[in-house]
Amino acid sequence: MPKIWTDTIALHRRDMRAAILDATAALIAEQGLGATTMLAIAERAGIGRATLYKYFRELDAVLVALHERDVASHLAELEAARERQGTRWQRLERVLETYARLAHAEHGSELVARMRHTEAVARGFIQLNSLLQALLVDAIEEGLVREDIPPPELAAFCIGALSDAHTLPSQAALRRRVQLTLAALRTSG
Amino acid sequence: MPKIWTDTIALHRRDMRAAILDATAALIAEQGLGATTMLAIAERAGIGRATLYKYFRELDAVLVALHERDVASHLAELEAARERQGTRWQRLERVLETYARLAHAEHGSELVARMRHTEAVARGFIQLNSLLQALLVDAIEEGLVREDIPPPELAAFCIGALSDAHTLPSQAALRRRVQLTLAALRTSG
Repeated sequence: MPKIWTDTIALHRRDMRAAILDATAALIAEQGLGATTMLAIAERAGIGRATLYKYFRELDAVLVALHERDVASHLAELEAARERQGTRWQRLERVLETYARLAHAEHGSELVARMRHTEAVARGFIQLNSLLQALLVDAIEEGLVREDIPPPELAAFCIGALSDAHTLPSQAALRRRVQLTLAALRTSG
Repeated sequence: MPKIWTDTIALHRRDMRAAILDATAALIAEQGLGATTMLAIAERAGIGRATLYKYFRELDAVLVALHERDVASHLAELEAARERQGTRWQRLERVLETYARLAHAEHGSELVARMRHTEAVARGFIQLNSLLQALLVDAIEEGLVREDIPPPELAAFCIGALSDAHTLPSQAALRRRVQLTLAALRTSG
């Protein structure tokens, strides 16, 4: 097949995959995980069941793919927060605020609860830890962050300190929690 | 029945219950949760199965009771850490260190993993939060802890910041984590 054809096919497959995941996300949001079946997904995406099964062999594969897409999108958002203008301290603050907000927004998500112990989540945390570590190392070099604790431990502390962000009652409480977390990192004296 | 008799019976029942839970804990430690059956517990405790079933109607009831006993014993240990001599700051430090050590020791506990979402755990966290709040309020009054954040949020932060203590690689890392957590609480400037 000419290259232009294979490209078109690859593009079509990617779009179809995305449409299936969009349909699944909409179904979960509107009717809950319990009502999300392969049949309901196919109907929602406007495709036949046989076509759906060509893309995903079972419901769990759709859910894992959807969740992996969410994790990737969260990491992209965190990286964008890191890249925006500002001092190193402001960038650290922005990344922690973004992470707290994402964790807060996930509150009560059935999909997140079901996927808690998956590999995608474990990989996501490793990437988040690396992202934070890189920021922290820079901030330590500038004398903004304490140097008496290894950066991997500082990064793990930040993630732990925000791990229950979904239980906080308001955006104000969320901001206070981020400020508390940052206060621990600050060079003392 | 004379009172001395009912007292004796109550005492006997309490001792028997304790012996059953001790036997269960020993079994889990030695052979894992999978090998812990009602029959194995009865044999280990040196009683008949019929007697065991008079105390606990099913395996899950034994496990819940054992876990509740563990939670109560942890809370007692935390209260003892709070009551010991020292400044308010030292007492706060001691309670956080005790909590981090207990969380660390639970690492890989099959029983804890299985009981994670039980009421006993939820109640335990509420009691831990109250215990910390009382200490924090005293420390705020003495000007040792920041007053710009409500004590319930400070207490929740401490618990969150130590929530992954079981993943920390060493006692030294555990102590550093407690120091980081305390640093966030300290009155700034």
